[in-house]
Amino acid sequence: MRLSDLETPVLTADLDAIERNISRMQAYCNEHGVALRPHIKTHKLPELARLQLEAGAVGITCQKLGEAEVMADAGVEDILVSFPLVGAAKAERLAALASRVKMTVAADSAEVAEGLASVLARHGIEVDFLVECDTGLGRTGVQTPEEAAALAELVDGLEGLRFAGLMTYPSLPETASWLQNARNAVEARGLSVERVSGGGTPTAERTHELGVIDELRVGTYIYGDRACIANGSVPLEDCALRVVATVVSRPTRERAILDAGSKTLTSDLALGATGHGLLVEYPDAEVYDLNEEHGYVDVSRCDRPPQVGDRVTLVPNHACTAANMHDEIVMHRGGEVFETLQTAGRGKVR
Amino acid sequence: MRLSDLETPVLTADLDAIERNISRMQAYCNEHGVALRPHIKTHKLPELARLQLEAGAVGITCQKLGEAEVMADAGVEDILVSFPLVGAAKAERLAALASRVKMTVAADSAEVAEGLASVLARHGIEVDFLVECDTGLGRTGVQTPEEAAALAELVDGLEGLRFAGLMTYPSLPETASWLQNARNAVEARGLSVERVSGGGTPTAERTHELGVIDELRVGTYIYGDRACIANGSVPLEDCALRVVATVVSRPTRERAILDAGSKTLTSDLALGATGHGLLVEYPDAEVYDLNEEHGYVDVSRCDRPPQVGDRVTLVPNHACTAANMHDEIVMHRGGEVFETLQTAGRGKVR
Repeated sequence: MRLSDLETPVLTADLDAIERNISRMQAYCNEHGVALRPHIKTHKLPELARLQLEAGAVGITCQKLGEAEVMADAGVEDILVSFPLVGAAKAERLAALASRVKMTVAADSAEVAEGLASVLARHGIEVDFLVECDTGLGRTGVQTPEEAAALAELVDGLEGLRFAGLMTYPSLPETASWLQNARNAVEARGLSVERVSGGGTPTAERTHELGVIDELRVGTYIYGDRACIANGSVPLEDCALRVVATVVSRPTRERAILDAGSKTLTSDLALGATGHGLLVEYPDAEVYDLNEEHGYVDVSRCDRPPQVGDRVTLVPNHACTAANMHDEIVMHRGGEVFETLQTAGRGKVR
Repeated sequence: MRLSDLETPVLTADLDAIERNISRMQAYCNEHGVALRPHIKTHKLPELARLQLEAGAVGITCQKLGEAEVMADAGVEDILVSFPLVGAAKAERLAALASRVKMTVAADSAEVAEGLASVLARHGIEVDFLVECDTGLGRTGVQTPEEAAALAELVDGLEGLRFAGLMTYPSLPETASWLQNARNAVEARGLSVERVSGGGTPTAERTHELGVIDELRVGTYIYGDRACIANGSVPLEDCALRVVATVVSRPTRERAILDAGSKTLTSDLALGATGHGLLVEYPDAEVYDLNEEHGYVDVSRCDRPPQVGDRVTLVPNHACTAANMHDEIVMHRGGEVFETLQTAGRGKVR
């Protein structure tokens, strides 16, 4: 069966492109002595996590415990949850996970560390802890290297957690000196920094230039998306994740309507690009608006605009969120369907 | 069990508010002799469709066949699919549905009508057809009343389809004269217009003023959302759909980070409001950005900003898409959990 035989809209991924993307990032990490810990929030598929681990990844990163549970159930044995875990219920779930696989967590506050530690200690379990550092994004993370050192020392004194290092996202130009200062401040307190974890596909292959990061968390590289094309990290031909859609209306010469809207592609925009996805067969067309099920396409500049019933292929703006919309994904090689996978880690918001 | 006992982030709906919203819209329709055909794309729950039908709805509206299949399986017997169905596979699925429940479809082209009719006729099945009219939105729909009449006449001549009337979305000020002209043009060709279907929550309770619309398709009214608050159609106290989230980081005095991001709330914006959801307990705070799992909150204007571990309640910008992100939803009355429902119609993009 070929992709052209499938009902639309349908989320598809090109296994050949996926394998190229996995190989390229692993080769980069091998060359520079950086440990690769892919973020599975992009694909949410145990099958792709396995490919990443077989290629040489040291473990995986998850954003939520629910994703980690899916991956542990599928046999993944080394998992970092990079999102702060708050509350007794999550601490209990972490303890259950840590009793069967190696777990690492990250957070930026004593409240979170102490909340986790008290539950873990009660279970007699120890989990690695990374101090999250805000090195420029302005999201989560301690605000200064000195704060990082203070939290590291606090964690070092907690039963149930083991201070293991530092984490940041993304790896920005200002990241290197920030993290080096934090490492120095931690070491000045007599603690050792085993791991310094950085992340982000756009700047991934400059990680070695920073000197201080020895673990790389990247997700989007495996699929690519319109933002990756715009920032130069993944070329169009390696953008594995695509939505096949159908033109369902051509009410005017200028306008085509697709059966793919925000429920298929999400409303996420792509930095450096306009519109809602790249229309591969019609580079002169623009998806200028979305409703839940409708994609609005301006075809005024197309010499031969698509007609009702024609199929088109879209590279989504944001692979991670687009993949999260779909219960299943069709894996193919060169348009020939290989298998349909259930997105086991989809929608795990907790 | 109370909502405050649940792990976050969690999607919740207030059954009391839902019942008020259903009653109010049904009372409006009853008073004005308009048939109510709620759009279930908002909730995607057979249980709520049943409440709407028990209150007096004549049937339901679905946006995709997959939603209609879920609803037919749950016993709903009269379904309009308001999205153009293209391709033989969808025509076969429509035929299967129409063999067990009353189905109506809508489209704006001969291509779609003929594609459906040929398959339906082969099965010896007849389905009602509404001509979709673009009365101002600029999405799908024939562009002139004369085009509407021509398509009506074409459908009237097709075995497998029965011309039943006109459909538009949303009901705008210019809608009335457009639809009246289309009705006149259709009737001038000797055809009768049984139904004229309009839609949209913001203008729903002005439907009777248009004179020409006798069926109302509305979805969002059942839950309400931030856009409904902004356009005045649903007050905050009747906004049934809410996300309960937790503050997981307070890296600075000004910034709080929630465990609810675009995977929980979607990136959809709300016309007439800024930010990504209304923070009920902190009206001076603004959710100014989202990543997939992180909600960024500016708490600089809060006298007592929430701390790590505090729980907050958000009214999403867009109820329909937020509900689509979650495999389950917790129904409650006054904070006391009533039941947890699986979102049976979630993610049915085909």
